[in-house]
Amino acid sequence: MTGGLADSPPDTEVANRDRLVTAATESFASKGFHATTTRDISSAAGMSQAALYVHYPSKEEVLYLICRTGLEELHSVMVVASQGATDPADGLGRVARAFAVWHAEHTALAKVANYELSALTPEHWQVVRECRHRIELCFREHLQQGMGTGAFSVSDAHMTTFSIISMGTDIARWYRPDRTWTVDQVADHYAAMVLRLAGAEHGRGGDEPQR
Amino acid sequence: MTGGLADSPPDTEVANRDRLVTAATESFASKGFHATTTRDISSAAGMSQAALYVHYPSKEEVLYLICRTGLEELHSVMVVASQGATDPADGLGRVARAFAVWHAEHTALAKVANYELSALTPEHWQVVRECRHRIELCFREHLQQGMGTGAFSVSDAHMTTFSIISMGTDIARWYRPDRTWTVDQVADHYAAMVLRLAGAEHGRGGDEPQR
Repeated sequence: MTGGLADSPPDTEVANRDRLVTAATESFASKGFHATTTRDISSAAGMSQAALYVHYPSKEEVLYLICRTGLEELHSVMVVASQGATDPADGLGRVARAFAVWHAEHTALAKVANYELSALTPEHWQVVRECRHRIELCFREHLQQGMGTGAFSVSDAHMTTFSIISMGTDIARWYRPDRTWTVDQVADHYAAMVLRLAGAEHGRGGDEPQR
Repeated sequence: MTGGLADSPPDTEVANRDRLVTAATESFASKGFHATTTRDISSAAGMSQAALYVHYPSKEEVLYLICRTGLEELHSVMVVASQGATDPADGLGRVARAFAVWHAEHTALAKVANYELSALTPEHWQVVRECRHRIELCFREHLQQGMGTGAFSVSDAHMTTFSIISMGTDIARWYRPDRTWTVDQVADHYAAMVLRLAGAEHGRGGDEPQR
């Protein structure tokens, strides 16, 4: 143990937990929660078969931890990105860009936090649902702000928010770093699409090169 | 057996297969493929525990059947919807509407055909991938047609198609028939959003009432 607070776990324990969470994230994302065994996770982390239970009470607890911390991090990058925005379109564009970058850079984590939620206990689902709600609210508030100033023209802010989130979360399913586009290109395109959905004039992007 | 061709299965067998497929679709959609047992499917269909194997060689064959026939049906309703379109925006709007209606009316089927694909064998995945590709192509060709006439303004037809499909398939995840919107409202909103993504002038919908 290298310094730190008296209650902190030793560094090796922290490292072991991190390895287990990383291995669980990859496995849940590729095979799904139910098809992943605790042995799969422990052995992918290079640890003994029962290692997971030394650090976590259950496989579901690991899923919960992944979803909660992942979505909290996502919300946080969105909030940070929106700071210093000069107008509603700039604000929505910044938030959208951050959302896209996070999904393109955390494909496994994003897949788990979106597609494995039915495996959570009702109590854990409640907490994760609140995290998702804050993310939704972040988009919707930016939309409504621009609707208020006349910068945006949206017929239904709720459904438009769903559309924005659907487009963005799905990046984690289709984006491959070795393919046609860089993360920046995906994020720029997504932000332009979000501004189009918001009816922002300069979000229409008609002056970009056609492919 | 009531008439029909000599090779056709008896009506009761067809009915039993239909019940099994319906039960499997519901179960795969709510619990996921891996968490669903063949017993779950048989008993939800009101049949004996081993009934599934009487009609299908494996649980994966049932998944394959659900995905393939579901996506073929979806493609077919899109093609039919596009017939008689008066211009590119009308064509894209019709296809988008059909896509949204199908997802709102077949939420369980759509979830299975989108989120359980990793459980398919490589051979079956190949066939299902081609079904998905035809659907993608249907949207992209409408986009490109409008780009050709100047009706649309799109910087990247591939990424825009992904965005369109992401928004539409996700309807099956968030739409509940008992909630705020009718299927028609969801379809109208989706079609308007798709036309905005395409940069179609009259798809911007700024004259609709704000909520």
